[in-house]
Amino acid sequence: MKTTTHRLALIGFGTVGQALAKIIAAKQADLKQLRHIRLQIVAVATPGKGSLYHPDGLDIAALFAALEKDGTFAGYPDSPGLERGWSNLALARDSNADTVVEVSHTDMTTGQPALDHCRTALSRGKNVVTSNKGPVALAYADLSALAAANNARFLFESTVTAGTPSLRLARHALAGNEITAMRGILNGTTNFILTEMEAGRSYADALAKAQSLGYAEADPTADVEGIDALAKVLIVANAVMGCALTKDEISCRGITQLTADDIAAAKAAGKRWKLIGQVEKQGGQVEASVQPVLLPLSDPLAQVMGTTNAVTYRTDLLGDVTLVGAGAGGIETAAGLLADILAI
Amino acid sequence: MKTTTHRLALIGFGTVGQALAKIIAAKQADLKQLRHIRLQIVAVATPGKGSLYHPDGLDIAALFAALEKDGTFAGYPDSPGLERGWSNLALARDSNADTVVEVSHTDMTTGQPALDHCRTALSRGKNVVTSNKGPVALAYADLSALAAANNARFLFESTVTAGTPSLRLARHALAGNEITAMRGILNGTTNFILTEMEAGRSYADALAKAQSLGYAEADPTADVEGIDALAKVLIVANAVMGCALTKDEISCRGITQLTADDIAAAKAAGKRWKLIGQVEKQGGQVEASVQPVLLPLSDPLAQVMGTTNAVTYRTDLLGDVTLVGAGAGGIETAAGLLADILAI
Repeated sequence: MKTTTHRLALIGFGTVGQALAKIIAAKQADLKQLRHIRLQIVAVATPGKGSLYHPDGLDIAALFAALEKDGTFAGYPDSPGLERGWSNLALARDSNADTVVEVSHTDMTTGQPALDHCRTALSRGKNVVTSNKGPVALAYADLSALAAANNARFLFESTVTAGTPSLRLARHALAGNEITAMRGILNGTTNFILTEMEAGRSYADALAKAQSLGYAEADPTADVEGIDALAKVLIVANAVMGCALTKDEISCRGITQLTADDIAAAKAAGKRWKLIGQVEKQGGQVEASVQPVLLPLSDPLAQVMGTTNAVTYRTDLLGDVTLVGAGAGGIETAAGLLADILAI
Repeated sequence: MKTTTHRLALIGFGTVGQALAKIIAAKQADLKQLRHIRLQIVAVATPGKGSLYHPDGLDIAALFAALEKDGTFAGYPDSPGLERGWSNLALARDSNADTVVEVSHTDMTTGQPALDHCRTALSRGKNVVTSNKGPVALAYADLSALAAANNARFLFESTVTAGTPSLRLARHALAGNEITAMRGILNGTTNFILTEMEAGRSYADALAKAQSLGYAEADPTADVEGIDALAKVLIVANAVMGCALTKDEISCRGITQLTADDIAAAKAAGKRWKLIGQVEKQGGQVEASVQPVLLPLSDPLAQVMGTTNAVTYRTDLLGDVTLVGAGAGGIETAAGLLADILAI
């Protein structure tokens, strides 16, 4: 069978972009043998490291060698056809990539600049694969319509529970079922903090531990105030359940008001606080929220500890179906991008 | 968009076949609107109820009305083109069905007669969708090769964890991952019995309760001796993990030797016995087994109670991914058949 080459432009080359490049390098032989496909990175672009474009493909080992030298692509060797300094939008518009991999930073207010990257690529008929929650949470309907109009694909498995395939489970594997509700532990940082608090730490100590382990940002607002979970609720509501919800229609409360006493009282009562994102359709109405919920230990979501994520879909034919797995991490997120690329 | 008609011949019309027919009738309008497909049952055949074939489709309501009268298809109204008494093999060979739905009884010794139904249909280029574990567990390699050679599909989602999509999760949603191991609670009957024993019942009482609720057969051997779980291990090993294992290469022990004392001792130690089916690849070697395993309560599988099933896949990129859901039931099994049909 003939091997097909599929060209990728990576906008963003942080933890996730780098993990994807490493996985592609490591799996190239398997992909060729088992799936008859060669994934070729033709462009990488970042605000801090510069940008590179070669229509015949970049050398992944040389990318990392350059970064190791001085943290930029300056040391990537010149060769005929190599171009430097293309902007993100130019790559999305004019590169020869089949698929733009959007892995720049998430902005949950405007979705920018990722939203423009996605729009530009899709309007040129390029597929977009992204782990960036902003564009999907804020503009799913627009972007999927744009993709359809240009005969391109718009895929975003790793925006929810990283590469653990909660979207593909619902959108494909549960085909034929109607999904009437979703409840999930959609943010690993807050679940880690709650787990640590149950083990006896204060909120401040648990947060500090999460930060020292790289699970929480220096500014933890997006995680602890529920905004990250809110983005994922929006994505599931819109892309899985067909509910055209917007950010302002979802009540959102994080974990910052939970005290060590609350956690201890729950434990004593055989229960457990979890930050739960949920969407429920009932008779034409949709209810969605992010908030701490006191769960009995018999609830499958109550047993999900540490940074692990979980999603329970309520279906008409199968009842509850729960998926549990990693919800963050560079490799885990890149795995979702790879699954999307292979689906194209 | 034009509606495509897809014709089905049902071999077997017990709980699962009837549930599928009811779901198709209930979802016909949705399937047409959302998927532009019309599913038409052109044939039903059972050993006890007779068989019916109409190349332009049978009336589902009339099938159930006939069964209600005397438990057979005798009262199904005659009409031009209706034929009675076709054999299973004749339907698999000569009917105009696009897909044969094999839902006759499972035989884990020979796989028959289902194996012949599958072979005949596939060799005529008809797709086969089945919830029957026998043919898949005993002859996966042969049947999938036969399907490929005849440009037909051979799908069997509901053979493992009923319609809870454990196979599609692994075979599609986890694309790009290597699956190195599987561990699962693959039999709901035994998990129900163990749950009841932990609540204080003896093995005999728990089994009697399972039988009275319809979870266990009058002859419970296939469940309690682990043979049903063994079939599922074989299916996962062969169809998901690419390991050409046969029945005799898997050590198999059921739950009949677990006593109330064993269960109580585990509970006192903060642990729980579960009947675990597993497959593990390690350096070219494959190890597979079905046996009771003493799990710590922190293991996600330890929290799966009652008739619920669960599967944990160990993957190279995502770590452990666990799917929890229904593992039996007419509707739940038929849901997996429907997902397979829609995938075709």
